[in-house]
Amino acid sequence: MKYPINERNKVKRVPKRGHYDKETVYEILDAGNICHISFIHNEQPFIIPTLYGRHQDKIYLHGAASSRMIENIQQGFPVSLAVTHVDSIVLARSAFHHSMNYRSVVAYGSARVISEEEKLRALKAISDQVIEDRWEETRLPNAKELKATTVLEFEIEQASAKIRTGGPSDDKPDYDLDIWAGVIPLKNIAEEAIDDDLLRKGIPRPKSVQSYVNTFK
Amino acid sequence: MKYPINERNKVKRVPKRGHYDKETVYEILDAGNICHISFIHNEQPFIIPTLYGRHQDKIYLHGAASSRMIENIQQGFPVSLAVTHVDSIVLARSAFHHSMNYRSVVAYGSARVISEEEKLRALKAISDQVIEDRWEETRLPNAKELKATTVLEFEIEQASAKIRTGGPSDDKPDYDLDIWAGVIPLKNIAEEAIDDDLLRKGIPRPKSVQSYVNTFK
Repeated sequence: MKYPINERNKVKRVPKRGHYDKETVYEILDAGNICHISFIHNEQPFIIPTLYGRHQDKIYLHGAASSRMIENIQQGFPVSLAVTHVDSIVLARSAFHHSMNYRSVVAYGSARVISEEEKLRALKAISDQVIEDRWEETRLPNAKELKATTVLEFEIEQASAKIRTGGPSDDKPDYDLDIWAGVIPLKNIAEEAIDDDLLRKGIPRPKSVQSYVNTFK
Repeated sequence: MKYPINERNKVKRVPKRGHYDKETVYEILDAGNICHISFIHNEQPFIIPTLYGRHQDKIYLHGAASSRMIENIQQGFPVSLAVTHVDSIVLARSAFHHSMNYRSVVAYGSARVISEEEKLRALKAISDQVIEDRWEETRLPNAKELKATTVLEFEIEQASAKIRTGGPSDDKPDYDLDIWAGVIPLKNIAEEAIDDDLLRKGIPRPKSVQSYVNTFK
């Protein structure tokens, strides 16, 4: 299934790198832990990094009611949201053809405040996006904490993914030059978890932490 | 030296995490390789990830003249720009106090097209930001390539940095719970470089690549 394509979400530069199918968009969104949100306030564009969780075309965002982002985007104004993964540096023979391999999504839509009943499920989605199965291990939010947290649901109206993979692509004559070309892969890894200084004795690292550290390396 | 603080760049949530001195802002900008740019077009906020280079309060951005970002922001409209590093996942005993350690900068300003004479210096700054000293090893841009590239200079009028470090901070009664708490450090690493398939025989990995791979691990 594809998102509708128009001037707003069409990939203009290097259109062959553009993708509009939900599967590709979801895959890139699900591989991230923070997104950047862009919104307008007083004719000024703002940008804010924040956590998110996804369920189908709904992206959950949370924050204190007093946060600038929450205050503004809960009013239903147009919002755009980006998730970007940088996979490698692509080194060509010419400066001009240097590039990056990346997977990015830009999504367009607007946000609404969700009801108290929906909050827990949405907060779990955000928690799962950062580290799966941690939610079940924690002391869950009480009424006061839930009240202090505004949760928004951003609905993806349109999105596009942009992906570059592979090696450098130089102009033909440049292949004869004595210049190294190739790729430097970049990777995000998780290092060994560190116990809190105030951790009670005898509490082992839970499943969520163990599997995160092992799968992310 | 500090950026002027007003409603636009003031850190509203957890103000103690906010920093406005240029040294801190520069350090976070210089540690990144991509930024996200937010701008307005037809009353719609757009967001685009892109490479950048910095010299003092000037941030250089480049692209094809036909790119949506270049086309729009070169007109001098207000722009905001974010660079974000996620350093660790902070796991508290309560779901509510889970957090991330991060270093982020949001900068506000506007962009102008730079002159042909300034282009080479600005493109070198962008190249150095991705991988230092690579510029000198490459076949430098020719007149045609320079003409095809628009280079913008975004001047930072205001900025703020936001930084969280350290472990979780739980509510007092929660410290008695049998729940693990701590931090999972996240790291970006560079893996061993991969030669281009079409690399001529006998060309060793250059200095820029060797030092990048070694220092980034």
